[in-house]
Amino acid sequence: MPETKSSVRLDQETPAAAAPQEGQAELPAELRQRVVIDRVGPEVDAGRFPVKRVVGDVVVVEADIICDGHEELDCRLQVRQGISGEWQSLPMACQGNDLWRGSFPAASLGWWHFDISARIDTFATWLRDLGRREEAGERTQIDLQVGAEMVLAAAQGAPEAIQLEMEQLALQLQSPAWAAAASSDRLRELMASCADRREETHLEQPRSVWVDRERARWSAWYEVFPRSWALEPGRHGTFADLADRLDYVHAMGFNVLYLTPIHPIGRSFRKGRNNATTAAADDVGSPWAIGAEEGGHTAIHPQLGTWNDFHSLRRRAEELGMELALDLAVQCAPDHPWVKEHPEWFRHRPDGSIQYAENPPKKYQDIVPFDFQCDAWRELWQALGGVVRFWVAQGVRIFRVDNPHTKPFAFWEWLISDIHRTDPDVLFLAEAFTRPKTMYRLAKLGFTQSYTYFTWRTEKEETAAYLVEVSTPPVANFFRPNFWPNTPDILHATLQTGSRGMFQVRLTLAALSVGNWGIYGPAMELLESQPVKPGSEEYADSEKYEIKQRALDFPESLAPFIARLNAIRAGEPACRSAAPPLIQAIDNPHLLAWCRYEPAEKSRVLVVVNLDPDTPRRGQLRLDRKALELDQAGSIEATDLLTQATHLWPLEGIDLDCTPAEPVRLYRLIPR
Amino acid sequence: MPETKSSVRLDQETPAAAAPQEGQAELPAELRQRVVIDRVGPEVDAGRFPVKRVVGDVVVVEADIICDGHEELDCRLQVRQGISGEWQSLPMACQGNDLWRGSFPAASLGWWHFDISARIDTFATWLRDLGRREEAGERTQIDLQVGAEMVLAAAQGAPEAIQLEMEQLALQLQSPAWAAAASSDRLRELMASCADRREETHLEQPRSVWVDRERARWSAWYEVFPRSWALEPGRHGTFADLADRLDYVHAMGFNVLYLTPIHPIGRSFRKGRNNATTAAADDVGSPWAIGAEEGGHTAIHPQLGTWNDFHSLRRRAEELGMELALDLAVQCAPDHPWVKEHPEWFRHRPDGSIQYAENPPKKYQDIVPFDFQCDAWRELWQALGGVVRFWVAQGVRIFRVDNPHTKPFAFWEWLISDIHRTDPDVLFLAEAFTRPKTMYRLAKLGFTQSYTYFTWRTEKEETAAYLVEVSTPPVANFFRPNFWPNTPDILHATLQTGSRGMFQVRLTLAALSVGNWGIYGPAMELLESQPVKPGSEEYADSEKYEIKQRALDFPESLAPFIARLNAIRAGEPACRSAAPPLIQAIDNPHLLAWCRYEPAEKSRVLVVVNLDPDTPRRGQLRLDRKALELDQAGSIEATDLLTQATHLWPLEGIDLDCTPAEPVRLYRLIPR
Repeated sequence: MPETKSSVRLDQETPAAAAPQEGQAELPAELRQRVVIDRVGPEVDAGRFPVKRVVGDVVVVEADIICDGHEELDCRLQVRQGISGEWQSLPMACQGNDLWRGSFPAASLGWWHFDISARIDTFATWLRDLGRREEAGERTQIDLQVGAEMVLAAAQGAPEAIQLEMEQLALQLQSPAWAAAASSDRLRELMASCADRREETHLEQPRSVWVDRERARWSAWYEVFPRSWALEPGRHGTFADLADRLDYVHAMGFNVLYLTPIHPIGRSFRKGRNNATTAAADDVGSPWAIGAEEGGHTAIHPQLGTWNDFHSLRRRAEELGMELALDLAVQCAPDHPWVKEHPEWFRHRPDGSIQYAENPPKKYQDIVPFDFQCDAWRELWQALGGVVRFWVAQGVRIFRVDNPHTKPFAFWEWLISDIHRTDPDVLFLAEAFTRPKTMYRLAKLGFTQSYTYFTWRTEKEETAAYLVEVSTPPVANFFRPNFWPNTPDILHATLQTGSRGMFQVRLTLAALSVGNWGIYGPAMELLESQPVKPGSEEYADSEKYEIKQRALDFPESLAPFIARLNAIRAGEPACRSAAPPLIQAIDNPHLLAWCRYEPAEKSRVLVVVNLDPDTPRRGQLRLDRKALELDQAGSIEATDLLTQATHLWPLEGIDLDCTPAEPVRLYRLIPR
Repeated sequence: MPETKSSVRLDQETPAAAAPQEGQAELPAELRQRVVIDRVGPEVDAGRFPVKRVVGDVVVVEADIICDGHEELDCRLQVRQGISGEWQSLPMACQGNDLWRGSFPAASLGWWHFDISARIDTFATWLRDLGRREEAGERTQIDLQVGAEMVLAAAQGAPEAIQLEMEQLALQLQSPAWAAAASSDRLRELMASCADRREETHLEQPRSVWVDRERARWSAWYEVFPRSWALEPGRHGTFADLADRLDYVHAMGFNVLYLTPIHPIGRSFRKGRNNATTAAADDVGSPWAIGAEEGGHTAIHPQLGTWNDFHSLRRRAEELGMELALDLAVQCAPDHPWVKEHPEWFRHRPDGSIQYAENPPKKYQDIVPFDFQCDAWRELWQALGGVVRFWVAQGVRIFRVDNPHTKPFAFWEWLISDIHRTDPDVLFLAEAFTRPKTMYRLAKLGFTQSYTYFTWRTEKEETAAYLVEVSTPPVANFFRPNFWPNTPDILHATLQTGSRGMFQVRLTLAALSVGNWGIYGPAMELLESQPVKPGSEEYADSEKYEIKQRALDFPESLAPFIARLNAIRAGEPACRSAAPPLIQAIDNPHLLAWCRYEPAEKSRVLVVVNLDPDTPRRGQLRLDRKALELDQAGSIEATDLLTQATHLWPLEGIDLDCTPAEPVRLYRLIPR
């Protein structure tokens, strides 16, 4: 049976026209827009979130722009700096297949917005067709008259002088001198300025770009517990001790000095060594248990020193090219002054006691979480924003945010944008070791950088795939990975059982694949590897719960190797580039090879690491000559960036060895 | 130099708290929403356009739904039929990794909308934690009290009877019989119905689904020029002639009979045979030059018959399971009555003459385009809508739209949705042989089916890639390909030089890879292959400009082969499925293999075509056992759908031959 229904009278000979239908609405004027803009890029979630860039980047905007028929289009990129700047109009050019492109330099920090305007250029269409008619010998006086009428119509409403000029040009278009008028730049310019833009198509909303300073994308972090840096055994370290020994950190080439929390530490339910539930009298406690009678998030732990000491440390770091990063842990110890001053910010149990942190049956009685949903939430959020503003006023411009995934998304989006409203140079690193979609969401809503799953990617294929995923659009438009081989919370199994070579491999992977990396020191360079118990990723005698003084002059120390990695990062433009690492084929399942490539500087760096570093492994490398633009080269000059030895390689059949003595191979490549 | 700026006075010992910042706005209440919904599917352009489905489909909705912390979520799919129906709430379930899924049957034609609601389920979280505490032996009376308080709070504002019942349950929760209360379905139900939904998260806008009847996705078209179907040589054919010979079309198994335009044909500038610029006195003209003194788009060409003849043809087709499709060509011949009645709908040149169609220097003087941008555009659009409504009232439910890409996108979006408002069973096929992005845009804005580039895909890799592209999401969510081996405008080079085998290959590719296909007959089954000149895709002596009568009993006719293809399409559930063709590996560059698979019906069809059909080719097939769910099979029973021979195949190492006699191989596969 056919699926149609029929309302036909068979006796009718000439059916009547259909009557207008009920419910037909007046057609709105917007339906006259004929140009359509589609697939705009770069964008994040159709413009819900900004794309991230750094100062100096050129933002390349592309879109599919189509229209019915065959008319010429005039497409412009409209760019606005800040949230209330003036729109600037820039040209876009068609790249073929209806793809249009324009670009603008992100010349300063903060918000940028772009829009696209596209209209049918009737005059350009007429000019194009006039040329074709002339070429075919079919140009008539009427064709010229059509153009002249366009010019006269456009002149309506222009200032009188312009109107007169256009009337002259319209006359000339119909005279024997028509060709000079038709091809004049002046006429084109006048027609563009008089164009009817009422039916111009725009994006349904402007897209936004957040522009950070370069350190957002290119940073090397060194994490320390300041209290461990006293020289005298057993003494609680101070800011002054750390300042005295900053040369050591500086020599390794780091540019961010990240201090674990520096605030007074709670005494109630203080944790003892190795996370013991009861602390001994002299146990120093976890710095993340923030707040005691000496103060809360805006106070300094008295044993670390004074405000002057803090500022001296900050200035000393700055002299050495390092910025301080502070830890922002949005939680309280039970002794935090706010617990008494603002009980309305916390959840209470029916017996009146305050609700400590828990993930039943686990209990964290030394930590009291804020109740972000409390009735006084606005005051709470403003107070927490005030904490960040306080430290910003002390000259701190980088925050490492502890566990942001346990606080509401909307809080972070509000907090970061509110700080950025006045201080667009502030950077936030999200420590969100949580589920993948939550990690990405936090990046979208404003975090500058993010900790990642890098630490747990140890096999060749999964590591390569992960490097590509987190460094390539669309993810790279909103997410900036920060790779850490270790943290005070994470001593990965590879390091627990690994040789010095394995430490070198993990350091190289972190330092030379993406723009941001960091280590928890001196544990990393001193090869600390003892877990608290088998199967745990916690360090034995964790510095989180005790002072840990080390001999930094350990002969096996990797400090010189780390210094070399940071020097390569700084010295080779490819390692400072926003371009993602390019995985290279190498025919050994234990060898992972990638290149960094910066075309503008013609800088190419090749990295090969042996993921099984205690066994010698050999592989034949097949460079991706197209991606690396090596097709024109006859051979390649490869400079070993660890030994400075130089080799001349063929383009094909490059054999590389990784031995236990040389588990990573680093080369600068120059085509010859 | 560090990049920070500092606003610090070094002499300060205890910095003051930061003052509130200017420009801080009151925090809006929406910030309390803690749940985030992301990556909703299916959707087209973030909900700008509907997803397309057919009646009976189950619409599976997925989204990433995340929240800070560890609380339980309650996520619901909200579904509304029509544009003003009632919202129905359906469950969603977490599939792991924060992916939630729900579904609803698209039970009727027209618009459907869906939304997602997601909230934190505090009570479910408490229940879960209570279980964990109990298991760890740490459940306290206070924990029960917390739950009881939740129940009492939820009861506020409930009807008195409910309130009393909940108060009883709250008491019970604190009694020795707490476990029975905590685990009662009734309490869960009451708590869900009393839940505070003020902070529930919804999609920023509901997503829409357009539901067509099945013929939107599964149709077989046969295109005819009715005037060629008279039996007597030289007579102008009529609707009655075609009706008399419909058995011939029916026998081939088509279910859409598409008539080229049936309206009066213009006389001014009429084209002669082979597109000659001047017509002889007896030349019949192109049916696409619509309109003469006898009438325009709502009239029938007098030589085709009367309205009764038209309806008899329509009824005869319906009796045979075929629907009529009419051509909708939105353009006029210069003699069209509207040219005189509505000069305001057309563009005029300065000399007062009407502007004919042109693409300089090419001129189409027999065609006058509408000026969609004219001042009277609303009346014009409504009049064109009236044309469609007129034919809908005559029982026509399928339109093949000529060159939609030369009319504004907004016009089509308005027209199709306006017709669908009252007649959701009407189908529109877009003949947009234009640029890829325009082709897809037209599909998004409402066209039911689309002509494609299929005709020009002839090599293995490009054909395989194209089959996948147009039949797989995201494209398949809005685009329904209709594959044509030929049309009156396109005699592809493969057919000009190809053997009967090549015709079979092109027919098989079109008929068995996607849901919609069509041919221009009888040219196709009668193997017509002569181009008007070398290098042209125009037929010699094109039926567009003359009557072309054929002997349908041509011995080499492919009509029986076509009948078999359509019988397989109808008889094998896999060929009627919405699932895309699955390309199968076969190790010969001239052989292309794919499977259709419908899991619910356990129906599997294998198609192998030889793209170089005059040379025998052999290949070893490697079935994708995972995608085809053949992993459990020991062997495969393969029934040849052309010969009915049955083979028992191993799972690996299936050798297939395509000879010039058997250029296509078709099998039903059953795992054994």
